[in-house]
Amino acid sequence: MSVHEKSKTGVAFPQGFRASAVAAGLKKSGKADLALVVSDVPAAAAAMFTTNQFPAAPVLVSQAHLRASRHHRAVLLNAGGANACTGEPGLQDAKSLCAQTASLLGCSPAEILIASTGVIGQRLPLPKMLAALPRATKDLSPDKGLAAAQAIMTTDTKPKSVDTSVRIQGTTVKIGGMTKGSGMIHPNMATMLAVITTDMPLLKVEMKTLLREACRGTFNAISVDGETSTNDCVFMLANGQAGTKAALTTAGAKATFVRALTDVADALARSIVEDGEGASKYINICVTGAASDIQAMTAARAVGDSQLVKTAIHGQDANWGRILSAMGATRVRIKPERVRVDINRVPLVRKGVDAGTPWDKGNKALAPKIINIEIDLGLGTGRAQYRTCDLTAHYVAINAGYRN
Amino acid sequence: MSVHEKSKTGVAFPQGFRASAVAAGLKKSGKADLALVVSDVPAAAAAMFTTNQFPAAPVLVSQAHLRASRHHRAVLLNAGGANACTGEPGLQDAKSLCAQTASLLGCSPAEILIASTGVIGQRLPLPKMLAALPRATKDLSPDKGLAAAQAIMTTDTKPKSVDTSVRIQGTTVKIGGMTKGSGMIHPNMATMLAVITTDMPLLKVEMKTLLREACRGTFNAISVDGETSTNDCVFMLANGQAGTKAALTTAGAKATFVRALTDVADALARSIVEDGEGASKYINICVTGAASDIQAMTAARAVGDSQLVKTAIHGQDANWGRILSAMGATRVRIKPERVRVDINRVPLVRKGVDAGTPWDKGNKALAPKIINIEIDLGLGTGRAQYRTCDLTAHYVAINAGYRN
Repeated sequence: MSVHEKSKTGVAFPQGFRASAVAAGLKKSGKADLALVVSDVPAAAAAMFTTNQFPAAPVLVSQAHLRASRHHRAVLLNAGGANACTGEPGLQDAKSLCAQTASLLGCSPAEILIASTGVIGQRLPLPKMLAALPRATKDLSPDKGLAAAQAIMTTDTKPKSVDTSVRIQGTTVKIGGMTKGSGMIHPNMATMLAVITTDMPLLKVEMKTLLREACRGTFNAISVDGETSTNDCVFMLANGQAGTKAALTTAGAKATFVRALTDVADALARSIVEDGEGASKYINICVTGAASDIQAMTAARAVGDSQLVKTAIHGQDANWGRILSAMGATRVRIKPERVRVDINRVPLVRKGVDAGTPWDKGNKALAPKIINIEIDLGLGTGRAQYRTCDLTAHYVAINAGYRN
Repeated sequence: MSVHEKSKTGVAFPQGFRASAVAAGLKKSGKADLALVVSDVPAAAAAMFTTNQFPAAPVLVSQAHLRASRHHRAVLLNAGGANACTGEPGLQDAKSLCAQTASLLGCSPAEILIASTGVIGQRLPLPKMLAALPRATKDLSPDKGLAAAQAIMTTDTKPKSVDTSVRIQGTTVKIGGMTKGSGMIHPNMATMLAVITTDMPLLKVEMKTLLREACRGTFNAISVDGETSTNDCVFMLANGQAGTKAALTTAGAKATFVRALTDVADALARSIVEDGEGASKYINICVTGAASDIQAMTAARAVGDSQLVKTAIHGQDANWGRILSAMGATRVRIKPERVRVDINRVPLVRKGVDAGTPWDKGNKALAPKIINIEIDLGLGTGRAQYRTCDLTAHYVAINAGYRN
């Protein structure tokens, strides 16, 4: 079992799924900006949404549709406009898009889920989008997963499309996924949209738990810039087309499926951080020996969100004092004299003070593109992993000129 | 009553205070790096320290000295080495410096307070510093306040030295101050050192409260990069040389003194943000209408600490969606439909959505160097002010190469 990245089929890889991507005129470049993911048969669905208090219109509409319908047929996504902070008119726009898509697919509007990404506060160009929907439904194909992933890109430099297969009780079950996200990335969702599809037969009641479990150490443990956006969501659709023999009736089957699902979420989450706005380094922070898993995550996040740590790594400067200082600024239980820090297996801190490694050697440990920071607090068994990227002048350039 | 910035006398402005600055060889440039502030007579003292869990050796030593002695004579400060995360040897170094200074001034070591700033994790070059101390005591003068402020600069581009005078019950009372700080600046102290001196007769028991009050809306409401360092402290010395007639026996006298003290703290805090590492804009965030003052401060900090807000302002892009998104990511009580946002008096958000101001006009509001962001949550009477600066490519350059 391994996850295939840069998958051409992606979300359309599992049986009975199709995707499409069309240009509705939202991106100035004229590139595809509207993606549609459809299950040929009604599918069970679950989703994780942003915790931001200004949830975008598509977030509110998708939440209502998940409550209103037991089955879902499609996810409609667009780049080029977040439809957030657009008030009642923005809500109406999202509803119109769902209604039109439902009419074209021959289902009820509540069976459509919707997501948007782009600048906050502007209305969507509704007429253009409604005009593009018939093309989007006409172009649906099992080969368009990658194209759909391309359509939802904003500042992303690469499309993010993956697939995997797994054997469950003698049956081959497929999982596909796509995501977008590069800036405004932070735990509990970011300017990050993701769709995961599977032909595994799943009940709606169990899907929410499975998805939450898969997101915990993946989508909810990454950060590019500490920003939690108004639009984040991860959608999961399961249409059961793999056949009824596959079922999560045994602990082994469940473990196998959760692992595959988590691997897909992990590959997608990793691809976001690796494509972090302006990033030159991919940083993996592992905290062990904390008083609890939650404390470990707090410490890991403090390090991963520190601008000074991120700039030091960018400058290949093994300035470990910034790592300790970032953790020390939290309320996590710390005994300085027990703290150990290694970067790419080079010891930098022992017993809370300099491990004696020459500066040059420490700095050399930061030469690779992948930076593993291992921190042991020496107190308990709590552990956590958090992934981020470095902070570069290029990030500033991208975000200083985003709207212009 | 007004605060005089760029004061030549600064901390040595009040009666009975002198300062000096010498080069001990900590800065590669050969510039002065050791500052001494002395009261000719025993002074009452108070201090605010970092809340970081890796407090530097000088922080621990100063805390012990404040407990051990009722009176204090001097503050010794150095740039070029933080003496943080240096373990027991670092503590001994700080104690040796205090002992030597005390011996030269003819007082007990506990009467000396000490502070350091610079790279974390390296031992101080103790022999050089001990050798420089006789020069530092010999050079003490009422004219060396600015020189002392210069000596404690790290990435600061300007020395920060102020003074003011105020009439209390017919007597002229003087207050002087100096500070350093440019990066690693965040509430509850930053890589920020400050010394405030006054010839006002004050009791040690009342000073702590006065200092805390003066810091709340000033040193504790600024941020450059969201980092709380291991070394921050604000020291205050009061030697009573203005004469015994000045006393805080009336509410009016107390209010006058607190206002003057706060003005000094405010001028120093503002000078730090204005000199923020790589900053091109000075951002003043005012939140009103929150459910409480604490919630207002949480919202103001979320906006001021947002990398996306800071880069947008740098790019003169009135992308107000990032302001709402940053507040929305907190747990502060918000009703989107009541939120108003103005930048430099240009309305950007009304009732949680676009105020209808053309983009060009919004962007033009960001042309000045000083950016006032006014946010009204429309819920209650809670208010707070928070000051920060923009995030620039230059900040990244400074911090990527800091140790090299």
